[in-house]
Amino acid sequence: MNPLSSPLLADLYQFTMLQSYLEQGMQETAVFELFIRKLPPGRNFMVAAGLEQALDFLENLRFSPEELGWLATRFRPSVIDYLEQFRFSGDVHAMPEGTLFFPNEPILRITAPLPQAQLVESRLINLLHFETLIASKAARSVLVAPDKVLVDFGMRRAHGAEAGLLAARASYLAGFSGTATVLAGALYDIPLFGTMAHSYIQAHADETTAFEHFARSNPDNVVLLIDTYDTEAAAGKVVTLAPKLHAAHIDIKGVRLDSGDLAAHARNVRQILDQGGLQSTTIFASGNLDEYRLQTLLSVKAPIDGFGIGTALDISSDAPAFDCAYKLQEYAGKPRRKRSEGKATWPGRKQVYRYYTPQGEISHDIVALEENDSYEGQPLLVPVMQAGQRIHAKIPLYELRQQTLASYTRLPKAMTALDTAPTYPVTISTALQDLAKQLDAEMMAHL
Amino acid sequence: MNPLSSPLLADLYQFTMLQSYLEQGMQETAVFELFIRKLPPGRNFMVAAGLEQALDFLENLRFSPEELGWLATRFRPSVIDYLEQFRFSGDVHAMPEGTLFFPNEPILRITAPLPQAQLVESRLINLLHFETLIASKAARSVLVAPDKVLVDFGMRRAHGAEAGLLAARASYLAGFSGTATVLAGALYDIPLFGTMAHSYIQAHADETTAFEHFARSNPDNVVLLIDTYDTEAAAGKVVTLAPKLHAAHIDIKGVRLDSGDLAAHARNVRQILDQGGLQSTTIFASGNLDEYRLQTLLSVKAPIDGFGIGTALDISSDAPAFDCAYKLQEYAGKPRRKRSEGKATWPGRKQVYRYYTPQGEISHDIVALEENDSYEGQPLLVPVMQAGQRIHAKIPLYELRQQTLASYTRLPKAMTALDTAPTYPVTISTALQDLAKQLDAEMMAHL
Repeated sequence: MNPLSSPLLADLYQFTMLQSYLEQGMQETAVFELFIRKLPPGRNFMVAAGLEQALDFLENLRFSPEELGWLATRFRPSVIDYLEQFRFSGDVHAMPEGTLFFPNEPILRITAPLPQAQLVESRLINLLHFETLIASKAARSVLVAPDKVLVDFGMRRAHGAEAGLLAARASYLAGFSGTATVLAGALYDIPLFGTMAHSYIQAHADETTAFEHFARSNPDNVVLLIDTYDTEAAAGKVVTLAPKLHAAHIDIKGVRLDSGDLAAHARNVRQILDQGGLQSTTIFASGNLDEYRLQTLLSVKAPIDGFGIGTALDISSDAPAFDCAYKLQEYAGKPRRKRSEGKATWPGRKQVYRYYTPQGEISHDIVALEENDSYEGQPLLVPVMQAGQRIHAKIPLYELRQQTLASYTRLPKAMTALDTAPTYPVTISTALQDLAKQLDAEMMAHL
Repeated sequence: MNPLSSPLLADLYQFTMLQSYLEQGMQETAVFELFIRKLPPGRNFMVAAGLEQALDFLENLRFSPEELGWLATRFRPSVIDYLEQFRFSGDVHAMPEGTLFFPNEPILRITAPLPQAQLVESRLINLLHFETLIASKAARSVLVAPDKVLVDFGMRRAHGAEAGLLAARASYLAGFSGTATVLAGALYDIPLFGTMAHSYIQAHADETTAFEHFARSNPDNVVLLIDTYDTEAAAGKVVTLAPKLHAAHIDIKGVRLDSGDLAAHARNVRQILDQGGLQSTTIFASGNLDEYRLQTLLSVKAPIDGFGIGTALDISSDAPAFDCAYKLQEYAGKPRRKRSEGKATWPGRKQVYRYYTPQGEISHDIVALEENDSYEGQPLLVPVMQAGQRIHAKIPLYELRQQTLASYTRLPKAMTALDTAPTYPVTISTALQDLAKQLDAEMMAHL
């Protein structure tokens, strides 16, 4: 059982419900939509991400003999027979990755026979929630420091392997320059960045020898970590070492600071490097950074050229989850509405229309019914899968990244800041509101 | 490349350093220790977890031809030759899973040739950090509600697939009753729990029919979700339906509440069920729960028998990461010390000794050097791997769970509460303090 692609990566209720759906012959078409209920604290918008992985999951969903054997000890033969042949055969509509979106707007719609649409629930949420979470967090650093090199350093404190890999992908999609995670570079073609650990320095008898060894072994990527013992003293050693390396045609590309007052150290180090003739050696900083610390460092004009952002990025530290749901909106041609307290949903198949100002900035969205309720704005949901097959070839990740960066240029200025901007207007169409009222009335009559 | 076991799940610097270590012949024995710098806010102790996965990783670490091919485009042939034959051949000492531990205490020690010990850094942290994070979070709910059924419901908002699976494992290890995640049940032999989704109710024309269909398809596990439209009305329908199901030898095991004022609904529902003769039907609650909400619900004596805890558990919502490090403490027989500002480490190979009160409660720990510095307390680090091979057979997860539950009984009462208790005393031995001073003096002489 492959933990990343097994269809058993589901909640138990998906199989208990399946057993019942099959026995009742409830296999008509269901429409589920995935949306967020509200923005996490401090976010002005979300960045849709994870669609590629979601479609991979749907395309490759099948049950191995081992998985069927395990299920057979707990579910009835009719379930096992059904799953033996299982292929996802539904349609998917979604916002392209990198689309900026808001509460109540579906970012993905599944149209499939009810047992199929229900079975994919938990893993779809798991993938789309996490990548969207990280892309939306990463966007904030990109907007704060658009001219800096930003690198994902967070794999070690990401929540497991897949989180580390998908955080690298989502942050690159959102505009980061790259990642330190080798496997993410190999799997997703993301530029890789890396220097050395403190242990590398410590394992050597002295710091200068450590620097020289590293440079000779990695002549194209000489970024030296200078805070192991005394940052300014180490910067002096770098200057002293530079001519010797230069004679061997090796340039010191950069130095990395990882502790202490980064702005003060960066200023001191910049001066030491400049006076030593190393004006083109860059300064890279890391160590408990996030978008707020970036903003502070930039506001005091710390001479730092790039930042490694780790834990805060990979766990989305200030908002490590958001409230999203995958809800049944239509079954057997009839719109459905959940009315649980505080968790009511907008029924029916929906489309999101986006409007822009004459200057090209986004101005407001309308959530409407897909049929007989159309608007002139830009429809954000597009067909991406038909009858279980992807409609388009995969888009290279660097192209998605370019699209995301382009979408930021359409944000009103207040929404690009870390502070909370006025709420972006998202209107529910009259027809959709009327449908919700009508369903409520029907339900009240039933109670 | 298998994302969960690929040795490329590492930071780029692990390979740039490796290249240098090999070229410099730096292959002597290194000792790295993994420890936390401070407790996350609100935690009184941590629960060690993830060792099993860490040992699996070390035992199975090898490079596939595909991985070597990818590396060959970026690193020198000497690196590729070395990695072709790579096996982890080191020793590992660790605290058993479920051990309660504190800052500055190593929970894992790697003793191996430097290139090996360095190469495994990021994934070791990634695994041990996450499972320890979740076990430490889960312990709080277990201590608040020791007599309740607690179920992990969080996979959908866990950070990726592996996080969902390991969160199920870590929370069970810490005393939860089980999980809803089917694959975690299959992989780790954890009891599974599950009911139905709101969509199941919505897909039916009426609620009573939905309940009956579910019960007939899942007669051994009838737990009915009753908050889709009106909780109390649905409880009434359950009572009305019960005799019909009973005639078919089906009992309604429980109902689930997922929204609104859980305490108030639980009281109303308990009364409705009791008056309807369903005294043995239990009430299960879910919906944005964490240990604080559990404590509140228990303090008002809400008649709830079990809780599904999702997002807050699987992301450790109030502390989604903690400050841990994997640091070089000795190389080539010589103790090493990192002195970066605010991040200095205790050098040398260490052991942790634990002391108990006459009543059997933990009273204090001493962190000492492993050699010539022994104490009479209980040594917490034990050998678990020798020359790359596990020393003991894997311990079944339910036995680890029993050990963890037993360890809670040794906590002083104040440490079992959600409020912050007085700091647990962890002393650094005199010999260890002297060694650190001596290394500092040597370094100062070098600067």
